[in-house]
Amino acid sequence: MAPEERAAAILVKLRAQMAYAWDRAPFYREKWQGAGLEPGDIRTLEDFRRVPILTKEEIRADQAAHPPFGSYLCIAGGEVARVHGTSGTTGKPTAFAIGRDDWLRIRNAHARIMWSFGVRPADTLFIGSFFSLYMGSWGALAGAERLGMTAFPFGAGVPGQTKVAVRWIRDVKPTVFYGTPSYGLYLAEKAREEGMDPRRDFGFRILFFSGEPGAGIPATKRQIEETYGGLCVDTGSMAEMTPWMTNAECMHRTGMHLWQDLVYTELLDPETKAPVPSGGEGVPVYTHLERTSQPMIRYWSGDLATWTGEPCPCGRTYPRLPKGIYGRVDDMVIVRGANISPSAIEDTLRATPGFGGEFRVVITREEAMDHLVVQVEYAREVAAQAGRDGAILERLRKEMEERLRTVIGVWPTVSLLPPETLPRSEFKARRVIDNRDLFRSLRGGA
Amino acid sequence: MAPEERAAAILVKLRAQMAYAWDRAPFYREKWQGAGLEPGDIRTLEDFRRVPILTKEEIRADQAAHPPFGSYLCIAGGEVARVHGTSGTTGKPTAFAIGRDDWLRIRNAHARIMWSFGVRPADTLFIGSFFSLYMGSWGALAGAERLGMTAFPFGAGVPGQTKVAVRWIRDVKPTVFYGTPSYGLYLAEKAREEGMDPRRDFGFRILFFSGEPGAGIPATKRQIEETYGGLCVDTGSMAEMTPWMTNAECMHRTGMHLWQDLVYTELLDPETKAPVPSGGEGVPVYTHLERTSQPMIRYWSGDLATWTGEPCPCGRTYPRLPKGIYGRVDDMVIVRGANISPSAIEDTLRATPGFGGEFRVVITREEAMDHLVVQVEYAREVAAQAGRDGAILERLRKEMEERLRTVIGVWPTVSLLPPETLPRSEFKARRVIDNRDLFRSLRGGA
Repeated sequence: MAPEERAAAILVKLRAQMAYAWDRAPFYREKWQGAGLEPGDIRTLEDFRRVPILTKEEIRADQAAHPPFGSYLCIAGGEVARVHGTSGTTGKPTAFAIGRDDWLRIRNAHARIMWSFGVRPADTLFIGSFFSLYMGSWGALAGAERLGMTAFPFGAGVPGQTKVAVRWIRDVKPTVFYGTPSYGLYLAEKAREEGMDPRRDFGFRILFFSGEPGAGIPATKRQIEETYGGLCVDTGSMAEMTPWMTNAECMHRTGMHLWQDLVYTELLDPETKAPVPSGGEGVPVYTHLERTSQPMIRYWSGDLATWTGEPCPCGRTYPRLPKGIYGRVDDMVIVRGANISPSAIEDTLRATPGFGGEFRVVITREEAMDHLVVQVEYAREVAAQAGRDGAILERLRKEMEERLRTVIGVWPTVSLLPPETLPRSEFKARRVIDNRDLFRSLRGGA
Repeated sequence: MAPEERAAAILVKLRAQMAYAWDRAPFYREKWQGAGLEPGDIRTLEDFRRVPILTKEEIRADQAAHPPFGSYLCIAGGEVARVHGTSGTTGKPTAFAIGRDDWLRIRNAHARIMWSFGVRPADTLFIGSFFSLYMGSWGALAGAERLGMTAFPFGAGVPGQTKVAVRWIRDVKPTVFYGTPSYGLYLAEKAREEGMDPRRDFGFRILFFSGEPGAGIPATKRQIEETYGGLCVDTGSMAEMTPWMTNAECMHRTGMHLWQDLVYTELLDPETKAPVPSGGEGVPVYTHLERTSQPMIRYWSGDLATWTGEPCPCGRTYPRLPKGIYGRVDDMVIVRGANISPSAIEDTLRATPGFGGEFRVVITREEAMDHLVVQVEYAREVAAQAGRDGAILERLRKEMEERLRTVIGVWPTVSLLPPETLPRSEFKARRVIDNRDLFRSLRGGA
């Protein structure tokens, strides 16, 4: 479709989505009234830029005030088919209530998009990511069901499970893989430890990924394609935006197409919030066009990407994110599919008796898996007690690891340091050191 | 329906199922030809007793000869909707290939049966069991989807996850719980550790369980009902028999009804294989009546149960297992939902260099979770080396734990003992000591 034709179709859906949210969600009505706007004011896509940006903080505050799903839930409780959520990285998690109709639309959207990167009904999809709150696994499964292919929802995350996974993959020979890029590489390592060669003993012809940057980064893409002998496809927007596959590479892998008629995506300047022209860098801001349960309208991702309108050999005229999503405007880091905010780590440590006041987060990649190390100073009182009670440091370390795990959703390794070991700064401290090659290759050696 | 009427309906389905399997599955054709039988010979339910019993060993051998799904798979690969499997307790796991039509029938059957124990579309189901190979979680989800209720498939099994679960349960207040009985009790303990009272802070009105005995044992049922203030419902046959909910208590909780028109169940004497009369104890032997992918016909469960034809207040005329499934005829033990064979443990230990020749399995319940401790003698050579190399025992212990984990599907604790510590017997050694109250209450203090 020509971009102008598509813009007209998008506008019709956008207006309907806004009118629907205005009618059903006190949250949106108040928000837009506060900005002096109502849905009827939006007559062009330019007008749409007057709609105020929606942030994660706002929806979290609304859920706290209207538990559990917020006053932006537009359907009755009985129409909710699924409950999922975020891992609660930055304090309280966000709860998703997905309607029955939405679930069908998600299935349809994901099936179409999986088709665009080459998945067919004769394929078997191995899902190598955790089935719980995380929408990634469930979204891949929903698409597979609708596509009429064979689904092998194996999951991930339980100690020892990957060793079992490689045997099943060797025996059943699924043809498509879904997971995070770091898990894809970890799986290959485990296979080699078991004496297998993923290229020879497995049968993956397509591997698609979400949850982390990586599959869109040339060096990592090459590594995955060489390891498995299949296509590496980058996909994914955000869990809140499910159908999250509306950002997805086609089989030509020229960067993620933005399926604008399902989720309308703008790229905005992080400071001015003005639209970024083709070729520029900005923050993707997403708007659901087909969501009746918890529609997100102008949702600020906080991610960084560049976009382009250059043609793709597949013929789709959607704009693309040629380098995928490769960074954040804030200080969030993504570790094993979870968004982790250093401020959540800070809050948790400050609430733990025995914390000495300074910390540092170091992210490394060992054996292809991300590791999160939190170096923490203990308090002077703890130092004094440690002479009498040798086990106090070990107890403090465990306590901190457990508290952090509960808040950030992944197990960190806490490494305790004596008081006043870490450097102090009068400016905003740089508390995160990301040593993963994945990120180094793009950011030039942070 | 009167039992005689139902028997006539069962016979029609049974004959159709056998004719279908004969046409499509070389496995069944050969097996029955070997017994001098063909489907047309079966004119009554008494005739059906001539059909040879099917064992787990047979299907495992057939899958090894015809990988990955065996020659008893009656559909083409493209018709397979789902791949799941057993955890591979006793060596190689069994792979399930479930057809698209079967998946719809499983959804229907589970929705009907969930309705029978009181679940309604307005309910929200929290699924607190692992989403991977294990059919329990997926079967509960399939039923919930068909029933049109809200599903909250939270999963279980990842370190730290239960602490997160209790917060979500408190906030979202699901009304129905599914998991294993031991996980149900563990969850309550974790809730209390977080300062919650499951009866006050949660909202479960029905809790249904499978994967382990417990929910059918009066003391445990009482404990669960008192803990949560909701009904405790026992369900479940075997993963191979999915729809596994065809053994299920109704809301009166008088023992599991056998939904004979979906899965036809006989109760046979473990030795003579003769039918056991009402009131007697025997081994449930199952036959699918509506399965087109991998039908099981006269599948020997190896479980122990009694049955009765006494009426139930619900009015259903199905026979019941008044004490549920409470034991095994072989030496298998069920720990955290996994069937564990001492012979698999033995095989694994014998293949590990450093094993001293004798072992014992002790199962305990700590904090409501089953723990599997394997006491293992190390070899004389190891004892000799341990003087020079202090770390050798620790390495051996870890090696054994990892090997066992891979084979039996749960993490054991290996406790090493010097050579010749454990008692020897010239008879079949009693190598399993089950210290869980759950089992003690029924077996009289084993």
